[in-house]
Amino acid sequence: MIDIENLSKEVAPLIDKEIEKVLPKNGMKNLNDAVWYHMETGGKKLRPLLAILTCEALGGSRDKILPFAASCELLHNWFLVHDDIEDGDKVRRNKPSVWVEYGLAHGTNVGDYMAHKVFELILTSKERDLEDKKIMSLLDAMVQTALSTAEGQTMDINLRGNNSPTEKDYLDMIIGKTAHYLTVPMIGAAVVADNEDLIPNLIEFGKNLGPAFQITDDILDLTEGKGRNEIGRDIKEGKRSILVVHCLKKCSNEEKAKLLHILNKSPEETTDGDVAYAKDLFYKHGSVDYARQMAEEFTSKAKHIADIFPQGLREILYFFADYIIQRRK
Amino acid sequence: MIDIENLSKEVAPLIDKEIEKVLPKNGMKNLNDAVWYHMETGGKKLRPLLAILTCEALGGSRDKILPFAASCELLHNWFLVHDDIEDGDKVRRNKPSVWVEYGLAHGTNVGDYMAHKVFELILTSKERDLEDKKIMSLLDAMVQTALSTAEGQTMDINLRGNNSPTEKDYLDMIIGKTAHYLTVPMIGAAVVADNEDLIPNLIEFGKNLGPAFQITDDILDLTEGKGRNEIGRDIKEGKRSILVVHCLKKCSNEEKAKLLHILNKSPEETTDGDVAYAKDLFYKHGSVDYARQMAEEFTSKAKHIADIFPQGLREILYFFADYIIQRRK
Repeated sequence: MIDIENLSKEVAPLIDKEIEKVLPKNGMKNLNDAVWYHMETGGKKLRPLLAILTCEALGGSRDKILPFAASCELLHNWFLVHDDIEDGDKVRRNKPSVWVEYGLAHGTNVGDYMAHKVFELILTSKERDLEDKKIMSLLDAMVQTALSTAEGQTMDINLRGNNSPTEKDYLDMIIGKTAHYLTVPMIGAAVVADNEDLIPNLIEFGKNLGPAFQITDDILDLTEGKGRNEIGRDIKEGKRSILVVHCLKKCSNEEKAKLLHILNKSPEETTDGDVAYAKDLFYKHGSVDYARQMAEEFTSKAKHIADIFPQGLREILYFFADYIIQRRK
Repeated sequence: MIDIENLSKEVAPLIDKEIEKVLPKNGMKNLNDAVWYHMETGGKKLRPLLAILTCEALGGSRDKILPFAASCELLHNWFLVHDDIEDGDKVRRNKPSVWVEYGLAHGTNVGDYMAHKVFELILTSKERDLEDKKIMSLLDAMVQTALSTAEGQTMDINLRGNNSPTEKDYLDMIIGKTAHYLTVPMIGAAVVADNEDLIPNLIEFGKNLGPAFQITDDILDLTEGKGRNEIGRDIKEGKRSILVVHCLKKCSNEEKAKLLHILNKSPEETTDGDVAYAKDLFYKHGSVDYARQMAEEFTSKAKHIADIFPQGLREILYFFADYIIQRRK
């Protein structure tokens, strides 16, 4: 059906071209080059694809959604630039993170610059004859998305000091941190394609797709690594993943004390043995199976919501829902 | 004429109230409290005042400019939150900086959150019956301001490694870093008050007011400190202030080598003796007088441009131009 690899290859240059219009590769030293240093590490272009395919399925034009689709990719990327600072991550997609390569001062500033280029990009929709009212709606949706994501980020950082995180804490956090900005490409598409009535259901769809995505990410960190040639980075960072939340409920007091001790160490202090211990514990108590099942349930719920959409859109959203839990990176 | 102390006292609660509408004091832990921890350190409310007084002088209503005026204050404040991270400043207005009090992860995220609350605030202008077209113009002006400021910030960080900074380097940097976001309150006021024809001249005015402001800041760092009970913080950070730029041109090779050695040390390594040496050198070579004269020239040029504005506005801008170079903090 949908060939995401090929679609990605088709769409990537269009998205890069949009971004280049507001962010030329040859620009200010330690700014434009730093942005592209990060952008050229690749990424799946999932969000722009979701925007374009949703828009087209709803009868909207690719031309008019392109700036917004590109802005979603830029949003995703500046989140990563600041996320790496906040998590102390020194590697991103197998290269030194921006703050490591360019220093913390530039790293912080580069993220801020990209964050505002997101809005500049959306404002270029004017040149595509998109109505002011729609541009305002796109800006508004993007502002709300960035705010929700920052709130989710706060919950994530707060949770790390929490030794008895509940499933509700976890779900609130990932809905804030992941769901909104996976949903905004679809919201933008509905705005551009004159289908704003679909937005409440698209938000409901996203509230289930987001957790499916994040829970899969939690598992991938344990099985494949996340672009850092490193298994168990989340363990080193002490993240309260769904695996941690589930395992802490199931394991013995002794195991709990040991797991928390490992999670609460700094990433540098965490040994490979610590990571192996935590990983074994997750498998021992069925936390990985539990997480997989949970991701599948969220996917099913998302699909159930997608059933009310017109057929073309439904097929696309079904595909993304499946893709998100089946991906290997 | 204008009593800025009293005006500040009158306007401050109105601005806080606007900001509180989108950023309640009781909100998420390590987010809302962190924002207000920073906001409550005070500040002169110069930018909101500039927006309100300009708008009223042009016949616009205070009610309609208030959200934008408040957004200028929030913009100023998030710049400071990230600026302190980028400069490694541990103290802001005599209290620990946000990143020191809440940690680097929250500090970065809090700044991002405030940056987007700026736009949410502007979008609330809809409730004041401001037309969509004007709101779009305000958003656009704010995006461009944040982008120019980030570019100026890049130039600032880049310059620190530069051992022969020119006056042009310095001026480009401070126009980027200071002028645009001192100008945007006036641009917003012109939009709201239906005087968009004045914007090009307001920008010219700001391009002179900004350097007058920053050069005065460079001098204040040497004479009064900048809210840190600390003289010569810029020297410790190795900033290429106008004093440094001028002094490096005038001093002997031996003095130059010693000054650069001091500037290129990390802030922690810089001793009080180093600061005293640099300060003496600035006075010896007339750099402080030179800077003062330069600030006055920019002020004169700014006033000259202000002459073409209607009388009410002219008086206000004259006042701000004088205030900016005469202030003691």
